Amino acid sequence: MYGRLLLPELQVMLDENDNAGIREFCEALYPAVTAEILAELDSREVWRVISCCDSQKQAEIFQFLSLPQQIEIVAVIDRGPLSKLIEEMAPDDRVDLLSRMDEEHVEELLPLIAQAERSDIRKLLSYPEDSAGAIMTTEYAYLPANITVAQALEKLRQQAPDSEIISYIYVVDEGRRLQGIVSLRELIFARPTRPLSELINRDVISVRVDDDQEFVAQQMAKFDFVAIPVVDNQNQLVGIVTHDDAIDIMQEEATEDAYRLAAVEPLEDSYLSTSLLTVIRKRIGWLIFLLVPSFLAAKVLEHYEAVSDKFEWLVLFIPLILASGGNAGSQSATLIIRAMALETNIQREELNALLMKEFKLGLLLGSMLSLISFGISWAFTGALMQATVVGLAVFLVVLMGISAGGMLPMGFRKLGMDPALMSNPFITALVDILGLIIYFQVAMYIVS
Amino acid sequence: MYGRLLLPELQVMLDENDNAGIREFCEALYPAVTAEILAELDSREVWRVISCCDSQKQAEIFQFLSLPQQIEIVAVIDRGPLSKLIEEMAPDDRVDLLSRMDEEHVEELLPLIAQAERSDIRKLLSYPEDSAGAIMTTEYAYLPANITVAQALEKLRQQAPDSEIISYIYVVDEGRRLQGIVSLRELIFARPTRPLSELINRDVISVRVDDDQEFVAQQMAKFDFVAIPVVDNQNQLVGIVTHDDAIDIMQEEATEDAYRLAAVEPLEDSYLSTSLLTVIRKRIGWLIFLLVPSFLAAKVLEHYEAVSDKFEWLVLFIPLILASGGNAGSQSATLIIRAMALETNIQREELNALLMKEFKLGLLLGSMLSLISFGISWAFTGALMQATVVGLAVFLVVLMGISAGGMLPMGFRKLGMDPALMSNPFITALVDILGLIIYFQVAMYIVS
Repeated sequence: MYGRLLLPELQVMLDENDNAGIREFCEALYPAVTAEILAELDSREVWRVISCCDSQKQAEIFQFLSLPQQIEIVAVIDRGPLSKLIEEMAPDDRVDLLSRMDEEHVEELLPLIAQAERSDIRKLLSYPEDSAGAIMTTEYAYLPANITVAQALEKLRQQAPDSEIISYIYVVDEGRRLQGIVSLRELIFARPTRPLSELINRDVISVRVDDDQEFVAQQMAKFDFVAIPVVDNQNQLVGIVTHDDAIDIMQEEATEDAYRLAAVEPLEDSYLSTSLLTVIRKRIGWLIFLLVPSFLAAKVLEHYEAVSDKFEWLVLFIPLILASGGNAGSQSATLIIRAMALETNIQREELNALLMKEFKLGLLLGSMLSLISFGISWAFTGALMQATVVGLAVFLVVLMGISAGGMLPMGFRKLGMDPALMSNPFITALVDILGLIIYFQVAMYIVS
Repeated sequence: MYGRLLLPELQVMLDENDNAGIREFCEALYPAVTAEILAELDSREVWRVISCCDSQKQAEIFQFLSLPQQIEIVAVIDRGPLSKLIEEMAPDDRVDLLSRMDEEHVEELLPLIAQAERSDIRKLLSYPEDSAGAIMTTEYAYLPANITVAQALEKLRQQAPDSEIISYIYVVDEGRRLQGIVSLRELIFARPTRPLSELINRDVISVRVDDDQEFVAQQMAKFDFVAIPVVDNQNQLVGIVTHDDAIDIMQEEATEDAYRLAAVEPLEDSYLSTSLLTVIRKRIGWLIFLLVPSFLAAKVLEHYEAVSDKFEWLVLFIPLILASGGNAGSQSATLIIRAMALETNIQREELNALLMKEFKLGLLLGSMLSLISFGISWAFTGALMQATVVGLAVFLVVLMGISAGGMLPMGFRKLGMDPALMSNPFITALVDILGLIIYFQVAMYIVS
């Protein structure tokens, strides 16, 4: 918004090859703002802009570009400057990028990257996607326990430019095993000769390198941490995950859950930058699968053809029956899936209470919708019997829809699967079939 | 999970009135963990536990309890200890609590609270809900510009225990107007005699006290900030919003969007702790409203009764027609609503490109589903003409569903409304009506 106003200015400087001006432009703005402006340019132009800056600024700006744009840009940069750029990037951001590039391209680049960075990259690339190891950064401040406050501050002075967050400093033993944390605040206000060991908080919460990123973000949200340390199987400190990653993960997971609820497979990038072909792949599977219950519904209707032939008005209310069960069911499913996403350790008793609540809701919401449907369909058809069939069927279908919408995600969870894998269209489809059977059974019972 | 294992131990100490033991128990655990255990106890027991601790620890633990539980607990605490507890709480957390308590109860309490805290509370309570002012904290570190590094550190030493985040320190002028920020890292590593003004980064990003909390969280996510300063109309610094609030807001907004997509009005508390009556109020409105399109669909079916009487097989595929349009439409709506939630400044051209993409998707997904439906319904009915009607109708209905699912949220946005107000069941309902019309028109065209 702010950035777009500056785009023409940048364009002029590009046209006039005013490299000094471009450099000044980039120095003056927040990297995030520069990146927002660069999102409007093509890959070669972006590289022309950032190559005017020093290598640190280059990496800062580049890291704020979206991953798809980063991938496009690395394709147009020569290997020399590209390896420099990658060396300067934060460890977690560069691994995100490298894991999405062609393997061949990466193998060409790695020999050009400094030894220390290279082995760091190889290690981070080896962690499974969506694990704590894959999102952590290896640039954090750490200290041994057996030094004084003054020595600690001196050591930090050396580490500081490299470490992402130094509000907390991690204390490790000779084997790099995590011993505890010290807050920078306490450190700078402590007497310089005091032993560091007196300041250590040894009750430190950490995550494992193979923990799922969603768990990591939930821990950070729960404890309100700025950063959380990541340890391996030997309790050796291997990295930290920072608050900005936690926000990104939360957004990513919320988007995934929203997609799944609407029967779309999660996308890797934003919808805007995902190709048509990928979108089709992510959508068509569910759509085809959902044809099956629709044909089963056709079978059900065929089965009751004798009834619907005799009482043609029954057909008119099929959309009503299908919609009321489906809508009430997807409300329940969404409420329960979201509750389980936010609260990971719901107990068995709470689940049972939740199911009981859903059942009561089914009775109450079913009664209300039933009464209204009864009234309208009476006005619509002018026949009490027909209105009775519709009213009673709506009651039963809403009750069934809500029970199914509540029980299916819980069933998924009991089977050890992510309840968010259950989509609302799938629940609606199941409710459709059962709803039609209920409707025609009620009709047969009342009219015959 | 971890906490629940310790619950029996705490119960024993409660039964034995072992106050010293309880105090030790609370001191040993993270406040967040203690709070998790306390969630299992009733209000009086919780208060018995935390009243064993000193007032600072009391407030720390209390702040990690859920808001509904906090409200239950304050009802059983005497005014004296309660006012002490509230004094100790963080300004943003206590205002959250007070704004949800009975006004009478609050007015009784305020006179018992220290003057400084009281006026802070009155001020924060005056900001609109969901604004930056309502979520910010007033405990932050700030400095005047005209001092040295050594003087700055001395001032911070005095402020530190009270300020939530001191990775960044805010520099203000005599009128408390925000001048810039200094990073604590730079401050501690600078020469003590250096003027503070040389370290100030004057290009500071802030939010207004009346900005929406969603905007605040998005700014923090965009710039990867640990905290963002909040200023009033005169650019006076009035508070900061911290990273943990940003995560909470993101979760709250994602949950709201998920609820709205499923036609549920947002809840104030978690689903687990919301009363049956409130849940009914949040669900029934949409459910009743959605009956209207169902009766319109009945009208449509009545209109085409002559056709469906003559060609009874048409009825069998009504669920298929309704489901394929609705499913494809809610996929599109969800993708677009989520894209607009994550990317607030999408431009007009991008929206048009998105709509064009949706239209192409409609053509492609429609063709695929059409072919499959054609095949299955041919096998199902054994009649080429019937399969042709179904296949062609599915194509048109999917194309229409996807176009509507894409256009409706964008239309909402153009009208200046939140696109997430559009629910998937509503889109499905509209698509149902149009879908039935398309289906019968196709049938009339082909069979007659």
